Amino acid sequence: MAGANGSAAAEAAAHRVGAPTNPMATALLTDQYQFSMAYAYWKAGKHADRAVKNPFGGEFTVFAGLEECIKFIANFKFTEDDILFLQSVMPMCEDAFFDYLRKTDCSDVEVYSIPEGSVVFPKVPLMRVEGPVAVVQLLETPFVNLINYASLVTTNAARHRHVAGKSKVLLEFGLRRAQGPDGAISASKYCFMGGFDATSNVLAGNLFGIPLRGTHSHAYVSSYMSLDEIPDKSLKSKDGSRVCKNFVSLVKEWLQKIQLADSLCGVFGETNQSELAAFASYALAFPTNFLALVDTYDVMRSGIPNFCAVALALHDLGYKASGIRLDSGDLAYLSIEARKVFRTLEKEFNVPAFGKMIITASNDLNEETIDALNKQGHEVDSFGIGTYLVTCYSQAALGCVFKLVEINSRPRIKLSEDVAKVSIPCKKRCFRLYGKEGYPLVDIMMRESEPSPKAGERILCRHPFLESKRAYVVPQHVEELLQCYWPGTSNKPRVELPSLEEIRGRCMQQLEKLRPDHIRRLNPTPYKVSVSAKLYEFIHSLWLNEAPVIDSETKAAKHRYNIRTPCFME
Amino acid sequence: MAGANGSAAAEAAAHRVGAPTNPMATALLTDQYQFSMAYAYWKAGKHADRAVKNPFGGEFTVFAGLEECIKFIANFKFTEDDILFLQSVMPMCEDAFFDYLRKTDCSDVEVYSIPEGSVVFPKVPLMRVEGPVAVVQLLETPFVNLINYASLVTTNAARHRHVAGKSKVLLEFGLRRAQGPDGAISASKYCFMGGFDATSNVLAGNLFGIPLRGTHSHAYVSSYMSLDEIPDKSLKSKDGSRVCKNFVSLVKEWLQKIQLADSLCGVFGETNQSELAAFASYALAFPTNFLALVDTYDVMRSGIPNFCAVALALHDLGYKASGIRLDSGDLAYLSIEARKVFRTLEKEFNVPAFGKMIITASNDLNEETIDALNKQGHEVDSFGIGTYLVTCYSQAALGCVFKLVEINSRPRIKLSEDVAKVSIPCKKRCFRLYGKEGYPLVDIMMRESEPSPKAGERILCRHPFLESKRAYVVPQHVEELLQCYWPGTSNKPRVELPSLEEIRGRCMQQLEKLRPDHIRRLNPTPYKVSVSAKLYEFIHSLWLNEAPVIDSETKAAKHRYNIRTPCFME
Repeated sequence: MAGANGSAAAEAAAHRVGAPTNPMATALLTDQYQFSMAYAYWKAGKHADRAVKNPFGGEFTVFAGLEECIKFIANFKFTEDDILFLQSVMPMCEDAFFDYLRKTDCSDVEVYSIPEGSVVFPKVPLMRVEGPVAVVQLLETPFVNLINYASLVTTNAARHRHVAGKSKVLLEFGLRRAQGPDGAISASKYCFMGGFDATSNVLAGNLFGIPLRGTHSHAYVSSYMSLDEIPDKSLKSKDGSRVCKNFVSLVKEWLQKIQLADSLCGVFGETNQSELAAFASYALAFPTNFLALVDTYDVMRSGIPNFCAVALALHDLGYKASGIRLDSGDLAYLSIEARKVFRTLEKEFNVPAFGKMIITASNDLNEETIDALNKQGHEVDSFGIGTYLVTCYSQAALGCVFKLVEINSRPRIKLSEDVAKVSIPCKKRCFRLYGKEGYPLVDIMMRESEPSPKAGERILCRHPFLESKRAYVVPQHVEELLQCYWPGTSNKPRVELPSLEEIRGRCMQQLEKLRPDHIRRLNPTPYKVSVSAKLYEFIHSLWLNEAPVIDSETKAAKHRYNIRTPCFME
Repeated sequence: MAGANGSAAAEAAAHRVGAPTNPMATALLTDQYQFSMAYAYWKAGKHADRAVKNPFGGEFTVFAGLEECIKFIANFKFTEDDILFLQSVMPMCEDAFFDYLRKTDCSDVEVYSIPEGSVVFPKVPLMRVEGPVAVVQLLETPFVNLINYASLVTTNAARHRHVAGKSKVLLEFGLRRAQGPDGAISASKYCFMGGFDATSNVLAGNLFGIPLRGTHSHAYVSSYMSLDEIPDKSLKSKDGSRVCKNFVSLVKEWLQKIQLADSLCGVFGETNQSELAAFASYALAFPTNFLALVDTYDVMRSGIPNFCAVALALHDLGYKASGIRLDSGDLAYLSIEARKVFRTLEKEFNVPAFGKMIITASNDLNEETIDALNKQGHEVDSFGIGTYLVTCYSQAALGCVFKLVEINSRPRIKLSEDVAKVSIPCKKRCFRLYGKEGYPLVDIMMRESEPSPKAGERILCRHPFLESKRAYVVPQHVEELLQCYWPGTSNKPRVELPSLEEIRGRCMQQLEKLRPDHIRRLNPTPYKVSVSAKLYEFIHSLWLNEAPVIDSETKAAKHRYNIRTPCFME
């Protein structure tokens, strides 16, 4: 059972695969029925049969979660406590089965995968797992768990990036709305992968090196009553050359100047003094990073003038305020109004770049609201997105599943009454074919024994199920999709796990390379996924052999017929 | 800073509060802006001000997550590595601030909470946290994270239990669709709390003692080709008195008998032999727990007759098969047809209780589909529910928030342009008043200084915002809602954390005690939440004082007015 290089753990060490990010990702993290089946396979002597399984993506998806899967198998081992627990819940199983589990690791498993951060399409396998059937069965649940949410939220993040555009700053603020601590940590990691710039989650920043962002909340503003609450009012200038003894007085002077400014025609009256105190106090703590939440009381009547007074006072001392955050109200209107004030003050008081200060918006944003803001016109530079991003409101789960496609070199096909559950059988190689303009044209799946497609050579791409749909393609460039990330006992060269930054880069690059009509929000053109002529013939001969004869038109039989005319690709 | 009994850790040990379930629940699990604010408070010397904060539930909710919050504060401490990381991301902060963080724990924090598993209603605080403002600020994000999803999924589970009815078995199958490992573990824990009977998640079974369930998948069935693949065909009878040398032959005999049975009029023809092999092999491994997934090929033509043949063969040897699982197709129709066959065979072959075998259904079920099945009529005994349960499709996030309600004994109210964000200020006591029939009538919030309501004594309950809505209530029984779970340096008696089973019991009991019209699926009657006359006066005097004078009808000003006529309670 042990791999050529010794145990899986030794293998992991040799390849510097660390522990899974989540300490919960242990060998017990699987469905009970996987152990039931492992026992039944073991009992029948089938546990060492070699099985080949594929998880599939359901729609246009960014594939994520691979690194965690590889770390999972690298660390896959039952502790003695695990064994004792399993014995207690499965008392009917023979002792020798538990001895088998004690010795089980993933030395003998091989994992082939599309690189993490790739754009993937329905029916193309994301990953192929080969190994003893009992072990592969135990990996099914944790792999699907580690891939499903990861891919879903990365895809969601990429969609947000696409609608916001390249120039905007995207901040992930989902910690308090995710499924517990680790749901949140996954969200932060994979939103960054999908194109976000930073997170509010400090632990995720620590674990993955993701940039952190965050200033203050409404509660911070509410906690102040008056300017008297600031004990030390002195602030050193940025260059250290002088000390302003009473920064609060300076702020008050600026507030008066703003209120009297001709160019603003006296639009600002009394502002909230506790808010002013909170801003002044915050600026004293963070003179180099002053970004204020301006909607605790009233954005235009209090928040903006208070902020500007503090920002201009900071400017006197050589600092440059960062900007504001809006967390309620009409974000399009408020951002435009705020920008007007900033620009007016830039001119009025000759403060360079004051008009360009960052306006961050953060109130229950999602793809649709950002799209709506774009259509209305707005002056937001940076979006803070939480709930809709991390819970993936528009589609709260991804349908990735594991399919048994081959056992002991015999292809297997699962025929279900539900057509969406039918898989493409056998071990396959998958290629992405690129056209002249550099766009990917089509993905093609082939039998393992077939020669690879070559650049400049014509190849027939067939729809997997519809006989009439076929086309010849001459690719300019060919990319093999499935690569070896865990060679097990095979001597195949292994792809090293890239860094999170590299994966993020791949994701951004892949999305840019796609023909824009494939990723547009409205009525995107479906990307074509095809099979080779040989694989087409093979699938259809297998279907004819496997399908039991249906001899009547009963209700159940009708369900059964569906699988003969699937049309879920286009 | 240290508590009367020494450090928080010592306190935790004394009360046997263990580590949080999730190893990720460390002091760094918070939003960056909490540290920014902690620094700003510290810088302004306000960090030790005593703040009082409340998270609120947004709708009818089962409150969950308390135990994890208490464990979190019991273990709240920054490691030297945490400090180094924080210094690296906040280089602008003074060193003395990090010294302050090094010494920070939750000895000086007090937590009052509604017991976990309680049914709660909008506007009543679930929890009150009192302590130094900088520390309470750091707790906001993790508490909201630990409570939001926990309460959401517990509520969702309770709703599923309500629609399924008491007699059905509910199984949580969400591991592969949750937000990563810990999302899944939380889902398993809180679904059990909300009334589920078991989970498929082995690790959750191990961590929380939740019963485990699971048999086999479609892949297991697909992995077999023929009956020849079963090497050891012998099976000992249940009482150990004899050995059946060829169980497979016995199964085949039974299959023939079923096919020829008069009472079935030959409805069964050829069945799928690989499925038969998989069932026979599984029965040999689990003769005492034989439950088969019958829809891999064709439920009525293959799965049911194959299952019955194996079940009847087991019966010959003194075993009792458990039943079947349906994972596709028309679950109402198939369960009724399967039940008919079981009952017919019970009579035909005189096999007691064969008609009562368990029928489990598990295909993308949710509250609505179970309700639809109930209306159609079905024979399902047990529901396996995954995606819709754990992702909470119908509402993927709960709006629990933390509100600053008091600082240094001064009440604080947050006035937002968004009316839903307005809170009820000041430290409050909350009571549930019960009527003659034992149903809760109304929750009432009171000022801390007021005397508690008493059974048999008339008390005025007012709508918090509408002057005309008020009623006198004479409670038969009064329950104080907020109890002390973490006394900090106070000498208040502390409520011990109950076991998961006890919390589940409370949840079931509370739901049963509610007037049925409050929890019915369609147009439920809103439960009344009220304030005392004194609290009403206090809130409204505070509003008058806090609201800035609005002197024009600009757009922003209109937003601002909204808060004067909130009507979100009914």
